Amino acid sequence: MDIYERSLQRHRQTRGKIEIRSRMRLETQEDLSIAYTPGVARPCEAIAADESAAWDLTWRGRTVAVVSDGSAVLGLGDIGPAASLPVMEGKAALFHEFAGVDAVPIVLDAHEPDEIVSIVKSIVPSFGGINLEDISAPRCFEIEDRLQDAGIPVLHDDQHGTAIVLLAAMTNATRVLERPLSNLSIVINGAGAAGRAIAFLLSCHNEDPDRCVPVGKIRVCDSKGILWPGRPGQNPTKEEVARVTNTESQQGTLRDALRGADVFIGVSRGNLLKADDIRSMAQDPIVLAMANPTPEIDPQEARAGGAAIVGTGRSDYPNQVNNVLAFPGLFRGALEARARKFNAAMKLAAVAAIVNCVEEPTVGRILPAPFNRSVAVRVAAAVKQAAEDSGVCRN
Amino acid sequence: MDIYERSLQRHRQTRGKIEIRSRMRLETQEDLSIAYTPGVARPCEAIAADESAAWDLTWRGRTVAVVSDGSAVLGLGDIGPAASLPVMEGKAALFHEFAGVDAVPIVLDAHEPDEIVSIVKSIVPSFGGINLEDISAPRCFEIEDRLQDAGIPVLHDDQHGTAIVLLAAMTNATRVLERPLSNLSIVINGAGAAGRAIAFLLSCHNEDPDRCVPVGKIRVCDSKGILWPGRPGQNPTKEEVARVTNTESQQGTLRDALRGADVFIGVSRGNLLKADDIRSMAQDPIVLAMANPTPEIDPQEARAGGAAIVGTGRSDYPNQVNNVLAFPGLFRGALEARARKFNAAMKLAAVAAIVNCVEEPTVGRILPAPFNRSVAVRVAAAVKQAAEDSGVCRN
Repeated sequence: MDIYERSLQRHRQTRGKIEIRSRMRLETQEDLSIAYTPGVARPCEAIAADESAAWDLTWRGRTVAVVSDGSAVLGLGDIGPAASLPVMEGKAALFHEFAGVDAVPIVLDAHEPDEIVSIVKSIVPSFGGINLEDISAPRCFEIEDRLQDAGIPVLHDDQHGTAIVLLAAMTNATRVLERPLSNLSIVINGAGAAGRAIAFLLSCHNEDPDRCVPVGKIRVCDSKGILWPGRPGQNPTKEEVARVTNTESQQGTLRDALRGADVFIGVSRGNLLKADDIRSMAQDPIVLAMANPTPEIDPQEARAGGAAIVGTGRSDYPNQVNNVLAFPGLFRGALEARARKFNAAMKLAAVAAIVNCVEEPTVGRILPAPFNRSVAVRVAAAVKQAAEDSGVCRN
Repeated sequence: MDIYERSLQRHRQTRGKIEIRSRMRLETQEDLSIAYTPGVARPCEAIAADESAAWDLTWRGRTVAVVSDGSAVLGLGDIGPAASLPVMEGKAALFHEFAGVDAVPIVLDAHEPDEIVSIVKSIVPSFGGINLEDISAPRCFEIEDRLQDAGIPVLHDDQHGTAIVLLAAMTNATRVLERPLSNLSIVINGAGAAGRAIAFLLSCHNEDPDRCVPVGKIRVCDSKGILWPGRPGQNPTKEEVARVTNTESQQGTLRDALRGADVFIGVSRGNLLKADDIRSMAQDPIVLAMANPTPEIDPQEARAGGAAIVGTGRSDYPNQVNNVLAFPGLFRGALEARARKFNAAMKLAAVAAIVNCVEEPTVGRILPAPFNRSVAVRVAAAVKQAAEDSGVCRN
């Protein structure tokens, strides 16, 4: 049985991956009077008087909704909400396992950004944070933007979780190679959720200029080649990416972009590049080929082409770039701080915490292992501190 | 410390009453590949091909959302969604404790029926059932009605849970007193969610005529007295109740209605009646005074007035009429049957199961004890069977 059939079998055995447990004893009439009527009236009144009391008196202060419409599920595409539930449940299980965060999968039969924004705003009083997941671009950008004033932290993990782990990987790769980030020429292939977030984080666009170090040069490509300002038929979000990254209006193909570049970042689809493409890059390039399950280039072929450091999204190669390094600690820190939103300082604090989890980075180890339980703890502490220092917390 | 302060303290200690647990081991890379990417693609595909596979492969088949807008919280009124969360969490804890149902509190910052209906429909793919809770009348009627085609069972517990337990209590009371239900003259005080549902269930309105035995005569009163068809200023739902119950167009006060009646059912507010009011009723009346925490009449005073059987909503008197006898088993049975909705047959099966949990009813024991764990099991089995027999199940 392959991994897919083993997964199906295990899901059938356990009937899903998460369950609810009661934290209060419910064995006697006294227990019932404390947990429910009439005693429960008192915690209700306390929250009615001051909503932030909910963070102490209910599960809200440790609970995140994992919200998706199932429109962009990894490797499967637009399979709809019902079919995306196993992914969201898996994410909830990881939240609990890695950060002790209680996460609830909420899959939505809704597709218009207006609808999704309004539903998510309506359920806000139930949760301490919202993890948007697997919502297709460009709708995910508008949806996340419009939820920033929801009063609790809302983050589209496919964008920022990926960008944070990627920036941590790049930072440690440059430590190994002793090159400054600010001189690098970078090509990002993929202009969807992850590509745009990586481009913005690397260029310090919308980010905190005091804490962010912009890289030297970025080119973002999609299936039609390099994004440039005014490229015909380009949607508004790609146009924005083009304007932020490609002020020189360079036109051309992915291969044109790669020529002389220091870093390739792939967040698109597998089997795109050959050793010769890597050879066309600058000396000792960094290749982070994160398409799943098949990377943009086979790691061995990338090395054959001269790549100094190679990372993928896969666990069976060195340097796995995995969101699980970021999202559990990000939300844990935000919940502990009672943050009202995520800001740039919090994201960059997460990057720094992940970077520092690797004491002496090497060519084969630019990131901590996904199963290193101390990562979420350190990310949470850094994010909490950054939230408190930047004044985004509730009283 | 009184029960309210003890409750506040306990809530602070546990930070809420429920939590999420993982059901799959997540310790190795293999575990992660099975629970999450890449293996999870297979259960996703299975559900994409046949949505009902979600009942086997995810937590959906054992999960209920407890949905409220916090507009009619027991004893507290319209305290809003955030403040109602402790009640919904308590309900979720009871669901798990009594029926092994995983319940998720979803409190909504939304008030228009259109909005609530549309939000609940949107979250349907996440859950196997929806328990509507503490939504004020008359909005709760429209909301529940419009959700009957949602594809999963939707039930407003304040209406039907209460009506089911009440009908079970009355049935056993008439067994004790050896009087047929069909001859009884009944007064219901309270024309809100519970009062209307009780009136309709007792009159077999909207119910299955093959299984339902209508009582002899029903009068429903609100703070202005008896509801009668065409009563000036009466809202449409009260008008409907009046037309169903009061075909003779009797007018008058609660006291007028009580004169000669066999049964008083109170679902309104405390301290309304005196012993003399009970004396005005028929010989050996049944008094079910369920206002909480103060009943419509003190049980001892009701007995002094001649009541043969007295029940309340309280645990410190005999015959506690408590929804916990119904809702856990109702939803458990509906989930196990993979029912698409609740119908009359399922509700009446729940009534019969609760009735039969008391082998030899007596004046002091017309209902099983709330902590009798076998009740939910028996209700679930009966509801499941009724669902299957009446053809409301998914394949």
